[in-house]
Amino acid sequence: MKEGQSALHIQKGIAQPDALNPLFQKGQLLVKKRQRSVAEYVEGILKGDTVLLSQAITLIESTKAEHKILAQAIIEACLPHANQSIRIGITGTPGVGKSTFIEAFGQQRIDAHHKVAVLAIDPSSQMTGGSILGDKTRMQYLANRPEAFIRPSPAGDSLGGVARKTRETIILCESAGYDTIIIETVGVGQSETAVHSMVDFFVLLLLPGAGDELQGIKRGIVEMADLIAVNKADDNRLMLAKQARAAYQNALGLFPPKESAWVPQALICSAISKMGIDDIWQHIENYQKFTKENGFFDKNRQHQAKYWLHATIQEELKTRFYENENVKNNLTSIEQQLFLGEITPFQAAEQLLRFL
Amino acid sequence: MKEGQSALHIQKGIAQPDALNPLFQKGQLLVKKRQRSVAEYVEGILKGDTVLLSQAITLIESTKAEHKILAQAIIEACLPHANQSIRIGITGTPGVGKSTFIEAFGQQRIDAHHKVAVLAIDPSSQMTGGSILGDKTRMQYLANRPEAFIRPSPAGDSLGGVARKTRETIILCESAGYDTIIIETVGVGQSETAVHSMVDFFVLLLLPGAGDELQGIKRGIVEMADLIAVNKADDNRLMLAKQARAAYQNALGLFPPKESAWVPQALICSAISKMGIDDIWQHIENYQKFTKENGFFDKNRQHQAKYWLHATIQEELKTRFYENENVKNNLTSIEQQLFLGEITPFQAAEQLLRFL
Repeated sequence: MKEGQSALHIQKGIAQPDALNPLFQKGQLLVKKRQRSVAEYVEGILKGDTVLLSQAITLIESTKAEHKILAQAIIEACLPHANQSIRIGITGTPGVGKSTFIEAFGQQRIDAHHKVAVLAIDPSSQMTGGSILGDKTRMQYLANRPEAFIRPSPAGDSLGGVARKTRETIILCESAGYDTIIIETVGVGQSETAVHSMVDFFVLLLLPGAGDELQGIKRGIVEMADLIAVNKADDNRLMLAKQARAAYQNALGLFPPKESAWVPQALICSAISKMGIDDIWQHIENYQKFTKENGFFDKNRQHQAKYWLHATIQEELKTRFYENENVKNNLTSIEQQLFLGEITPFQAAEQLLRFL
Repeated sequence: MKEGQSALHIQKGIAQPDALNPLFQKGQLLVKKRQRSVAEYVEGILKGDTVLLSQAITLIESTKAEHKILAQAIIEACLPHANQSIRIGITGTPGVGKSTFIEAFGQQRIDAHHKVAVLAIDPSSQMTGGSILGDKTRMQYLANRPEAFIRPSPAGDSLGGVARKTRETIILCESAGYDTIIIETVGVGQSETAVHSMVDFFVLLLLPGAGDELQGIKRGIVEMADLIAVNKADDNRLMLAKQARAAYQNALGLFPPKESAWVPQALICSAISKMGIDDIWQHIENYQKFTKENGFFDKNRQHQAKYWLHATIQEELKTRFYENENVKNNLTSIEQQLFLGEITPFQAAEQLLRFL
């Protein structure tokens, strides 16, 4: 009887938006099991137990208060074991061959005796409810390797929420011994800034064809790149890829120097034939050595921590303000006055702030 | 006795940072005069009286509560008369010839029977206490023309404060009949984003020499430009300027299309010989016609108003938070824990938010 009620509860839940999220359902199921202790999770994660790692990430992604408390305690205990890794952001429009690239890229790293975690930031997946199966099938090699851990983007959340959960997931993955963290993003939204603020090295994947492929790439992304890789440089596209590489190399030269003092390069590669993948890794290792020596590597991670501290505070202050009942009830009419030119933006802001 | 006290008050004031601002002292002097009414100011501004316009702007820049109230009432009364103008942002590093360019640029517009207001956004001037004299001497032609109104950047303030005051000053200038508003900025700080968010058209001035001049320009500014003008294209630098123009034109082609659907161009000009200035004006008029027809011009101004509404709210929420005594007293120690890796940025944020 109890079993039946519980199943009904889950079924009813499916009709609601949150329950479209498979992780939420997982969360529900977890409650029915005996809840493990913080110590059990931490011990398991530090041993590299991927089942416990996955479950702990599910706690991070859960919306339940008790799960959140548990997750924070696990993260806090793992923190001293995190931070020993290279975190790499990879972006590029759909069709550029991101999955194949990450497969070849991860394989190279595993062959060199490293452990690779692949996380994704894709707030658009909230519409489809995530794509766990999709993620695993599109990276079959990595999915079957014990040295690799693949986790799709948490679904059903805002970019801020996804970013926070991903950053917390990085801590757990690093504690579980993954020393190479790859954060993948789709390169068409605002998620690149978020990814850029949590990685050490940012790779922009582009297609052969000189110049016009940047059309699909959002403003500002080229400037963030530490490396441009022109993918699919195989067979009859090799010439085109070389031309594109030269054009992007030129474009990179027009940007001001980076704070890291690193000079970004454009390279060619073919994820399918694995041509150029070793080169890219060599490049990233050079970067790591260079920025560890000039102090940027650690300074940047501190800056990133500070950035997320203050971004989180500002996000929360905004949420509290715009969720205030009086603000909600008056925002539209005050914006209307603003659009009609009856008040200035500053007068409108003052009127709204008076409701606090 | 009362007089003496007042003078003493002013003298004491001078020892404090705020009083280094010449406008603040002006504000003090205003109080001693009989204060004009809102109606007097508005009537004067609508007639194009530059003395009353200047005094009203001084009220906008004042830090005194009574002046702020008066300023807001004047702005509100002027609002229905504002908005009929083209607002142009001009940026470029020191040495590119901004003053000479604005002289030639403004003169062309005055010759075509328009009225030109030149405002500056330069938060760095807070260190020198503004440069009123400097601004007037470096644009001698415009300074002596009744059709031109030059106002330097308000000093002694944050970028947010300067931006707000400049936006409010635009309203008063437009109400006084200035149909061409030029906002000048130095192109090395964060002020370009602020200027970009208050103008219809954004001009980036560069020097001849292909490519490497972008070194001094902050990231992201090239992408904001609706027009790149390669200045100082005279005599022996004409060839260099043409080469630079071609390189920048190429670079512009690598960026994604603008929301306005306008395709930014690179042109050459010489502010000294006036070569190319007519062309640039023709270009801006084409832009205005194009974006008024496709609806972007008005939509953009609405977006800008909305941007400033929400930016002001967020700025104020931040100020209130970071000025909270408990937050102030605990911020450093919590940041320290964060840097030592003892807590995550999100845990640090939650600790600080609990003080609210």
